Amino acid sequence: MKINHIALVVDDLDEALAFWRDGLGLELQEIEEVPEQEARVAFLPIGESHVELVKPTTETSGLARYLAKRGPGMHHVCVQVPDIAATLERLKARQVRLIDETPRRRGNRQYAFIHPESAHGVLVELYEVAGEN
Amino acid sequence: MKINHIALVVDDLDEALAFWRDGLGLELQEIEEVPEQEARVAFLPIGESHVELVKPTTETSGLARYLAKRGPGMHHVCVQVPDIAATLERLKARQVRLIDETPRRRGNRQYAFIHPESAHGVLVELYEVAGEN
Repeated sequence: MKINHIALVVDDLDEALAFWRDGLGLELQEIEEVPEQEARVAFLPIGESHVELVKPTTETSGLARYLAKRGPGMHHVCVQVPDIAATLERLKARQVRLIDETPRRRGNRQYAFIHPESAHGVLVELYEVAGEN
Repeated sequence: MKINHIALVVDDLDEALAFWRDGLGLELQEIEEVPEQEARVAFLPIGESHVELVKPTTETSGLARYLAKRGPGMHHVCVQVPDIAATLERLKARQVRLIDETPRRRGNRQYAFIHPESAHGVLVELYEVAGEN
């Protein structure tokens, strides 16, 4: 297991890069347009993890409303597990509230979100990455 | 560089462990009393990082007031750097607002906090660990 990434929602990608890349010294791997999330995402590797800076590109998405309501800050923590289906079953058996009852797929990844209500105020994403673990 | 830890402030350590240890499957390394922070801290290794679950033990500390005001959730992200003094100088030159202008020391670690105002709403701690990097 590892922290795959932490995702921060920001209102200005250039300003956020001025801090995380130019100030702290992280490398910018790429900036990706993610239309299905209505967002532009900067990926900055750090050790075995990434910092993801997420900038909403519309005003109507969940991310945009989160930003408008709470201001910029931590959005979620992504924990990479060896077997996401088994982890979800274990959480369900403990009455943990899941946003995704079964994993969703993108490329070589399966992912699912856990409701922050069940994770002490933190939005947690689970990842299983094919070929890792 | 790496994410040394993410710290979550919680109001009930047993409930938080039921999620992070029993649900997600992280190992509990130890629970430490940290009187100078008026807190009890559970350390759960995850890859090269840790999840720290921080429970205030008084009602008057900054942590306790943070919990009372915002509820449980993410408290800070700790980024381990090879040379904390150089990083702080670089941040100062960029007018980043620092909570600690010079590093503080605990054991083999030097640490300093950066004000969330300058880090897009995220409280960032820097670590330099002697013998690492």
